[in-house]
Amino acid sequence: MEPIAERRSVDLNSDLGESFGAWTMGDDAAMLQLVTSANVACGFHGGDPSTMRATCRLAAENGVTVGAHVSYRDLAGFGRRSMAVPAAELRDEVIYQLAALAGMARVAGTAVRYVKPHGALYNRIVDDETQAAAVVEAVAAFDPELPLLGLAGSAVERAAVARGLRFVGEAFVDRGYRPDGTLVPRSEPGALLSEVEAIAARAVRLAADGTVEAVDGTRIAVTASSLCVHGDTPGAVAMAEAVRRGLEDAGIAVEAFV
Amino acid sequence: MEPIAERRSVDLNSDLGESFGAWTMGDDAAMLQLVTSANVACGFHGGDPSTMRATCRLAAENGVTVGAHVSYRDLAGFGRRSMAVPAAELRDEVIYQLAALAGMARVAGTAVRYVKPHGALYNRIVDDETQAAAVVEAVAAFDPELPLLGLAGSAVERAAVARGLRFVGEAFVDRGYRPDGTLVPRSEPGALLSEVEAIAARAVRLAADGTVEAVDGTRIAVTASSLCVHGDTPGAVAMAEAVRRGLEDAGIAVEAFV
Amino acid sequence: MEPIAERRSVDLNSDLGESFGAWTMGDDAAMLQLVTSANVACGFHGGDPSTMRATCRLAAENGVTVGAHVSYRDLAGFGRRSMAVPAAELRDEVIYQLAALAGMARVAGTAVRYVKPHGALYNRIVDDETQAAAVVEAVAAFDPELPLLGLAGSAVERAAVARGLRFVGEAFVDRGYRPDGTLVPRSEPGALLSEVEAIAARAVRLAADGTVEAVDGTRIAVTASSLCVHGDTPGAVAMAEAVRRGLEDAGIAVEAFV
Amino acid sequence: MEPIAERRSVDLNSDLGESFGAWTMGDDAAMLQLVTSANVACGFHGGDPSTMRATCRLAAENGVTVGAHVSYRDLAGFGRRSMAVPAAELRDEVIYQLAALAGMARVAGTAVRYVKPHGALYNRIVDDETQAAAVVEAVAAFDPELPLLGLAGSAVERAAVARGLRFVGEAFVDRGYRPDGTLVPRSEPGALLSEVEAIAARAVRLAADGTVEAVDGTRIAVTASSLCVHGDTPGAVAMAEAVRRGLEDAGIAVEAFV
Repeated sequence: MEPIAERRSVDLNSDLGESFGAWTMGDDAAMLQLVTSANVACGFHGGDPSTMRATCRLAAENGVTVGAHVSYRDLAGFGRRSMAVPAAELRDEVIYQLAALAGMARVAGTAVRYVKPHGALYNRIVDDETQAAAVVEAVAAFDPELPLLGLAGSAVERAAVARGLRFVGEAFVDRGYRPDGTLVPRSEPGALLSEVEAIAARAVRLAADGTVEAVDGTRIAVTASSLCVHGDTPGAVAMAEAVRRGLEDAGIAVEAFV
Repeated sequence: MEPIAERRSVDLNSDLGESFGAWTMGDDAAMLQLVTSANVACGFHGGDPSTMRATCRLAAENGVTVGAHVSYRDLAGFGRRSMAVPAAELRDEVIYQLAALAGMARVAGTAVRYVKPHGALYNRIVDDETQAAAVVEAVAAFDPELPLLGLAGSAVERAAVARGLRFVGEAFVDRGYRPDGTLVPRSEPGALLSEVEAIAARAVRLAADGTVEAVDGTRIAVTASSLCVHGDTPGAVAMAEAVRRGLEDAGIAVEAFV
Repeated sequence: MEPIAERRSVDLNSDLGESFGAWTMGDDAAMLQLVTSANVACGFHGGDPSTMRATCRLAAENGVTVGAHVSYRDLAGFGRRSMAVPAAELRDEVIYQLAALAGMARVAGTAVRYVKPHGALYNRIVDDETQAAAVVEAVAAFDPELPLLGLAGSAVERAAVARGLRFVGEAFVDRGYRPDGTLVPRSEPGALLSEVEAIAARAVRLAADGTVEAVDGTRIAVTASSLCVHGDTPGAVAMAEAVRRGLEDAGIAVEAFV
Repeated sequence: MEPIAERRSVDLNSDLGESFGAWTMGDDAAMLQLVTSANVACGFHGGDPSTMRATCRLAAENGVTVGAHVSYRDLAGFGRRSMAVPAAELRDEVIYQLAALAGMARVAGTAVRYVKPHGALYNRIVDDETQAAAVVEAVAAFDPELPLLGLAGSAVERAAVARGLRFVGEAFVDRGYRPDGTLVPRSEPGALLSEVEAIAARAVRLAADGTVEAVDGTRIAVTASSLCVHGDTPGAVAMAEAVRRGLEDAGIAVEAFV
């Protein structure tokens, strides 16, 4: 990975296309004018086929790169419940989602250019070597040119690198970090930042010199070519706007990582 | 379509890959040694991702052509309940299934080479112009080179031809026909044939001169380049064996239509 | 049914509890302060178990009667796609939903006191005698004391009455009526009213003398002991407030019909 | 719990009603002539409404007690994938299933008389205190008279007892036991017994003096008022027959525990 301290550009990614049937989630149209990479739900935690298609088309129109936001099969839990899926099943469930979104993206005039696991799957493969390998195997089988977007230093990064896949680390602009570089759990104080300007400033430092201030006040290094901004909270659009403006004001180009 | 009377080959197709999770259906391994085209379920009426992959691989190993057996989203009803799905939703649900199976087929070393609607969708688009057009639009958007397999003389044939898609008619070796060429409804006597040798003889005539004896004893023309043999009934394998043997004994080659 | 012209009270019902997992729909808390009967989703078109429980509890706290809003099994289509479900399956699917909600209601300190079919099922059993009978049979099997809420003059009313069930007719305060008493289809002009005060005035006449002005200007009779106000549109709460205030200002008590 | 050594009767329970839509599983009709308690699937891992109803009716006809076989919401994984469901969601999902089956059982002329968690949920609440408490809370909220059937010495037993629920331990006639009383994992040798007469003999000892021979040859105590016989394997019926005959030949009455 390139030395982050000298980087003058960064990617902004967001989870989009998470509506399902009659239920809408997030303001995708607004977010797609602010981010450079769209993690598009593939139908397993959200994202019915027409939503997938519309989100891809809107991404294409806005010049936003499409990634496959693959998940456990868990509509009722929105993919947020960790599941002990056997490796072969998980691999095939991920391929199914990748393939479905790839077809939708093509029909919508674009293509899937990266993969980002969603929710509980994202969190589990930080440590779970078996599931991490299953996800990596799925991507390698479907298209070994697709990079994986996730947490640097994770089991899935190690598995991806070992398999010859490109791995791209991301940071979270509105999450608290512990001194060891892991996220503060949502149940603890300091887990979530809410002040928009502080978040924007944080994004700039993450992009400019690859550091963030941890909850104990120390400044730590975070390997991240992409910054994740949430798309489904009430203030999501305002936060993404502030982050983008902050980055541009600091002379950092906002560009897709792929 | 070629003049059927002079044809010396025919395709045998069967609905396969319909197991789901812990539930198995049919003897796919045996059927894949007998048929030349496998209609593989795509997850909406049956067929979990691992089943899709395994079915495609087994088809590839047996030199059997893979088709996408697209369905309404109805696991609980196995796709047998007609649904008033709006055209745009139906189109996108079909694309989703096509794309998912195409990815699975590729990973398994083969490809989707045709499309056959399943169950209630198959039956509905015999008459429903709107849904027929939606299915045709889905195939055309995904890959206009893919032929559609279905009932000759149907709304979906008309829509396919109008859109420039290839349409392939099929006949059912074990279903009763009415003098007008439509199938005897399952609720009426004569709907289903069960005697294996009679079915095999019927298959030979369907393939050799494109005719079948209707329930009233008249012999009628049926346009069919492919014969459908059921894969999920207890005697399915024995019937498929008899049909295949009958065709070969009559000097009719059993070959995929695509 | 009592002579409507002399009635000085009416029920207000609304479709509630339609959130599912991470997706929310409608402002149930506000609506439950305005209506007297809550049609609570049972999990087949919306309404996960925790939403069902919370909605029942909130209804109980507000003195609102709980009804079971039973649907086709169609989360992806929100129960809005007509389905050809065989009668026995439909009957059992309705019993399943009734029973599930009844348990939830009991745990939440209340009870299911009526049944209202949802969406495409509601519309289909206006005419489909077989499905109407299946729904009626389900209610009769589960609890013959439960009244059915629906469209007066429908197949389901006839089936309910024939089976000895109580049937309660409802009217829609914001829908256009044709001179024959049927609703103007949503695709035609005049289908939906949006002016809040006009809707409130309409509600008063429906409740006071059981009439409504049809799209051609004629005034027609509508048999309705309950008025349906929508809960899932942006202006839903404002409309329900206006309707309730209009009724109360006109001296018409707003009371549950059961 | 009564001193097992003096017990002269035992319950036989089996997982039944696990068919779903077009997919069948197990020979429920045969098993219901052999067992005394039927763990009936409630729709979350198997068991559509009509299957639930038919299974309850057949159980009633055979004098077999009906229990609710509650599961994670995981049709694709047949409830065999451990899921990190938050406690409140899990509690409500269990209540939903209990209520749905209770309604079906009542319509079928019987009632739910106990609760047995299924698959991954069964295994998880052996140790997971939080999920164990959620299941217990669900049963207590729905009907505190319902006993829970599970593994003696488990977290769920402790939670049930603490909450004042009756807990009934079960043993597995065809599973290997380790000297500490836990089951040999399925991935290890000795996990599964297949010789029918050995299994029947084992059942007799389990019922007669509450002991079983562990894989290391030592004889250990197992607290079990019920013996579980599998219903979904090819030899399930033959095994259940042998077990029942063995028990009866040994003078041990086969009777439901509730």
